[in-house]
Amino acid sequence: MKNLENRIVEDGIVLENNILDVDSFLNHQIDPVLMQDIGKEFARLFRDEDITKVLTVESSGIAPAVFTGLYLEVPVVFARKNKSVTLRDNVYVTDVYSYTKETTTEMSASKLFLSNQDKVLIIDDFLANGQAVSGLLALCRQAGASVAGVGIVIEKSFQKGRILLEGSGIRLESLARIEKMDPDSITFINH
Amino acid sequence: MKNLENRIVEDGIVLENNILDVDSFLNHQIDPVLMQDIGKEFARLFRDEDITKVLTVESSGIAPAVFTGLYLEVPVVFARKNKSVTLRDNVYVTDVYSYTKETTTEMSASKLFLSNQDKVLIIDDFLANGQAVSGLLALCRQAGASVAGVGIVIEKSFQKGRILLEGSGIRLESLARIEKMDPDSITFINH
Repeated sequence: MKNLENRIVEDGIVLENNILDVDSFLNHQIDPVLMQDIGKEFARLFRDEDITKVLTVESSGIAPAVFTGLYLEVPVVFARKNKSVTLRDNVYVTDVYSYTKETTTEMSASKLFLSNQDKVLIIDDFLANGQAVSGLLALCRQAGASVAGVGIVIEKSFQKGRILLEGSGIRLESLARIEKMDPDSITFINH
Repeated sequence: MKNLENRIVEDGIVLENNILDVDSFLNHQIDPVLMQDIGKEFARLFRDEDITKVLTVESSGIAPAVFTGLYLEVPVVFARKNKSVTLRDNVYVTDVYSYTKETTTEMSASKLFLSNQDKVLIIDDFLANGQAVSGLLALCRQAGASVAGVGIVIEKSFQKGRILLEGSGIRLESLARIEKMDPDSITFINH
């Protein structure tokens, strides 16, 4: 997605440990117009998949997911990293390891909103080592839901997330695929 | 907002400790069409205020805030409850006490995205005792930003949040105002 790639080049900041700081439009400040474009593009890509639900994880996945749900005309569920006061029992739970934070956290979703009747589109802001997406896939597996595919805003293609997902045969659509990056330049894989 | 009130009556579940569970359309599963309506309504109410930025807090504030930002044509910033890997220094920080969770957490926002040039609209999902909104106001105060008002999706009018805010002279617009609630019925304050 060209306007997304341009925005990453313009406003992204490459930090140490393979971290790409896009706090100015995705991870802290959000550009709603760009999120709308992203949602439209995911909806276009997965339009024929009979999606019944969009699944993401708090917090940065919510904005792209909610526009995807709007244009696919289906509800959005965001998995919780921290258990909320209303979400105590009756949940699917899985552990997710974060390489960037070097911590393991629980990810959970209510059994009320994800079932074996669902065909799920998973949306997330980043694909790096694939841990967050693997966690979301685990929640779908526990629910017996089928997964139509995974939509990623920014893929760091030099990390192992894509290989991990391709190995499982799941359709993966990333709107920007970073081949390599350093503080001076960011190179994308052309579609 | 009538369709919001109807949805609360239809799908809201009143729990102990004055907690209203609206996980089915706002706090865990999200109805994107309802969020779009909510964003349009906040944008209509604050259209003449020359807002430069919408400020909310993760996670449940993000969906209503991002549609508000879309229709006001301004960026959205979501304050962090947990410090992210890209948000380490150069932040405004304040403590926020949660009555429902009985814990104090830090809330932070980057100095890069909130300044004394901003006129801020604060958006949040719930107003109960006003602690989260007070935290967001504290971040604006630290930034020297002016606050045009506060937009709340669901106000529990029997708790002290509104009184707290009215005392500070800040414009408050709540789309649904709950006068009282128990497991059998929810009563709204008519506009």
